[in-house]
Amino acid sequence: MDHVMINMRLLFNPGSVAVIGASDNMSKLGFHVMKSLTNGKFPGKIIPINPGSNTVMGIDAYPSIKDYKGEIDLAIVVLPAKLVPDIFKECVDKGVKGSVLITAGFKEIDDPSGAHLHIETANIVNGAGIPVIGPNTFGMINLNKNLNASFTPEFSNLRKGNICLVSQSGGISHLLGFMAMGLNMGFSKIIGLGNRLNIDFDRMIDYLMSDSDTKVITLYIEGIDNVRGLIDSARKNRGRKPIIAYKTGKGKVGNQASMSHTGSMAGRHELYRSAFDQAGILSIDNTETLLDTAKAMSACPLPEGPCIAVLSGQAGPSMAACDLLESEGLKIDSFTGKTQEKINELLPPLALRTNPVDMGPAWYDSDAIQEIIKAAMNDENINGIIFLMMFASANVDALKGIRETLIKWQQKKPVISCILSPPAIWDEEIKELEENRAIVNYPTPERAAMAMANLWKYVLIK
Amino acid sequence: MDHVMINMRLLFNPGSVAVIGASDNMSKLGFHVMKSLTNGKFPGKIIPINPGSNTVMGIDAYPSIKDYKGEIDLAIVVLPAKLVPDIFKECVDKGVKGSVLITAGFKEIDDPSGAHLHIETANIVNGAGIPVIGPNTFGMINLNKNLNASFTPEFSNLRKGNICLVSQSGGISHLLGFMAMGLNMGFSKIIGLGNRLNIDFDRMIDYLMSDSDTKVITLYIEGIDNVRGLIDSARKNRGRKPIIAYKTGKGKVGNQASMSHTGSMAGRHELYRSAFDQAGILSIDNTETLLDTAKAMSACPLPEGPCIAVLSGQAGPSMAACDLLESEGLKIDSFTGKTQEKINELLPPLALRTNPVDMGPAWYDSDAIQEIIKAAMNDENINGIIFLMMFASANVDALKGIRETLIKWQQKKPVISCILSPPAIWDEEIKELEENRAIVNYPTPERAAMAMANLWKYVLIK
Repeated sequence: MDHVMINMRLLFNPGSVAVIGASDNMSKLGFHVMKSLTNGKFPGKIIPINPGSNTVMGIDAYPSIKDYKGEIDLAIVVLPAKLVPDIFKECVDKGVKGSVLITAGFKEIDDPSGAHLHIETANIVNGAGIPVIGPNTFGMINLNKNLNASFTPEFSNLRKGNICLVSQSGGISHLLGFMAMGLNMGFSKIIGLGNRLNIDFDRMIDYLMSDSDTKVITLYIEGIDNVRGLIDSARKNRGRKPIIAYKTGKGKVGNQASMSHTGSMAGRHELYRSAFDQAGILSIDNTETLLDTAKAMSACPLPEGPCIAVLSGQAGPSMAACDLLESEGLKIDSFTGKTQEKINELLPPLALRTNPVDMGPAWYDSDAIQEIIKAAMNDENINGIIFLMMFASANVDALKGIRETLIKWQQKKPVISCILSPPAIWDEEIKELEENRAIVNYPTPERAAMAMANLWKYVLIK
Repeated sequence: MDHVMINMRLLFNPGSVAVIGASDNMSKLGFHVMKSLTNGKFPGKIIPINPGSNTVMGIDAYPSIKDYKGEIDLAIVVLPAKLVPDIFKECVDKGVKGSVLITAGFKEIDDPSGAHLHIETANIVNGAGIPVIGPNTFGMINLNKNLNASFTPEFSNLRKGNICLVSQSGGISHLLGFMAMGLNMGFSKIIGLGNRLNIDFDRMIDYLMSDSDTKVITLYIEGIDNVRGLIDSARKNRGRKPIIAYKTGKGKVGNQASMSHTGSMAGRHELYRSAFDQAGILSIDNTETLLDTAKAMSACPLPEGPCIAVLSGQAGPSMAACDLLESEGLKIDSFTGKTQEKINELLPPLALRTNPVDMGPAWYDSDAIQEIIKAAMNDENINGIIFLMMFASANVDALKGIRETLIKWQQKKPVISCILSPPAIWDEEIKELEENRAIVNYPTPERAAMAMANLWKYVLIK
């Protein structure tokens, strides 16, 4: 393993963090970075660097990192681009292990001076084996270490989880983070790669494969220079942890935008997609599906086959789910004779009793619903269960007894649900069921079905 | 206009409502219907009918409608199917104007007795010109009249609005209603057609075209017998009010399920889609897009051409939006020279300054962002604006000044946004902007872009 990769561990797990450009002035990014570290309750040493202040946010500050006597593992840099080479020379001298370079104005700018600065800076850190996240990034967050090394303190409000997001866009990282807060999803790390001075997708994937906090790797990609590196890294690590990628820049305009934004052409979309498939990377088409799929991957086992049971409190939502499952290549085949007999005992002849099952006529018989779910779970023809229930005060009782059945099952086969009630009626119960590995819940039957379909697609390419 | 259509007005705007099967017993639907009417604050007369009680929920009850001396406009029926023909004979005698028949067990059941009962019941009401919503329905809600004629009291929590939902599935109606509560969307009416004794989609569309509370008509369709009637009604009313349809039963399984659920085959999906296009009905593929599109239709003018300006606080989300817009056939063309000059003055050369515009470098200059938005609004090349901003505490100020610019504009061209912040930071402000016709907001850039694309698709088929 090269020096950069060894230092990466300390970059994400530092004992001490210097903020070069720390400030008490709210209009400076150095203020917000300090707020992220302190509000996020980083347990290690925080060292503000500012030549004009003795303290920042009440913490002893130093004119430069040279003036601080202890060790510095991570340096977060928010000073203007032209100062960065000298800062990094000091970092090398000081023995800094890694850096988050928030500053913009490198190869993404029109002026060739940006590209020169990029190369000059890269040479300094590469010589010393210092991994740099950035430049032109919002930062990174390691939730399990309470390390919020970004200019957005609110990232610390995220739940700790096992999904890592590696993103080329700060906007998309914020979008996904804020959406996840509403979906009860947790992250291990969120990493804004920015313009990738020496850490690109390939090295991040290599690192994350041995990161025990991360189970699922999600990528947001615009344009990348080193496609081969990404593909090789994914191939080499194939099947170890799921990698899910959302790549924009499909159209004419997006491709041009990528050039300006990240200094890399987006490239031909179809080529990416097929290369990703072959490397076992699951391609996804939008931010919502990226999160939905990561949520399922992080909580469910993979289905062992394509046959799904659709169990629903109402027929309509089951039809929406079946349409989507079928169009994505999954099967809604017959139950075994034993399961079907059981269901026929439990439901009157007027119901949809074959797969999909309309459990509506058993609304007021929580035991019957439990028995149907159990029969489907144990049916050898069935590889996963979609469970759909829309309910309000008239039918809330049906769900109470099902809780235990779902918790006991512990996702032995994937159980993906859309349990929906008016806001605040059952929100806490759903959270509890998710935290107890009973269900993975989605706001619509189609999103639940798409999450299941993506689990199966991953099985086919991994 | 036939008698049924004349009575439809009183069905939706009754002065008095009888609940035939009203009950104080929580395990009965007649309890929940009574709760819907009373909690929903229906201002007219409520008449519980129950031969075993003198009062229901403290309201004087009668053994049968014959025993009530006043007029009854609407009769909600929750008694078992076999009693329905006699009940309806009494309704005819009493001069009831319309009915909501919640009871199931008609043509959707396997036993031929259900189909016979269906015909027998239809003959009774058709002879008297009484329109019936149902059977096998959760009911209907006319929010503008505080009339919740359903077994789900929570529908009364919905905002009043100008979108009407006509649905063949109670499950989907509940799903869309509960989702809308979270999206700050309002409805005029939600109508569960059920198994359509004598009121099918065609008659509902005819009625809603002259319903001044309804601006946008959304349909959820499984299988219908009278496709020709629906198409003819949409054609006849073409261009008057947008009609948006979500049709399930695409796949093999869904089609079979439709037969069992609604007694009608779903039929070949492609034929529906092309017939809908030709009748000016916009086809939609899932529940989320149905709501998103209705929300845009209800609040925005239609774009006069396909060229969209994408103005974004960050490049990544603008790329996601551009990809979707381009793949749906919209254009992200150049601004006029005048607009581009203006933007060049306001943004540094390092930014994405042509369409899409990355306003990131002007984050801390709210005036500059306002000027960019105004220039795009007034650009004659531009037919609509997508506005994207992900923000947290570090950049909340940028948005404050934009508020007024957006409110003043009043959607003269459509302005569709994804303004997203951590939960609770800007929720109230977004609600206020939506209520002031300043924006229509979505949770992701792709959903915002898809809503815009659907406005344009409707222009092409209407």
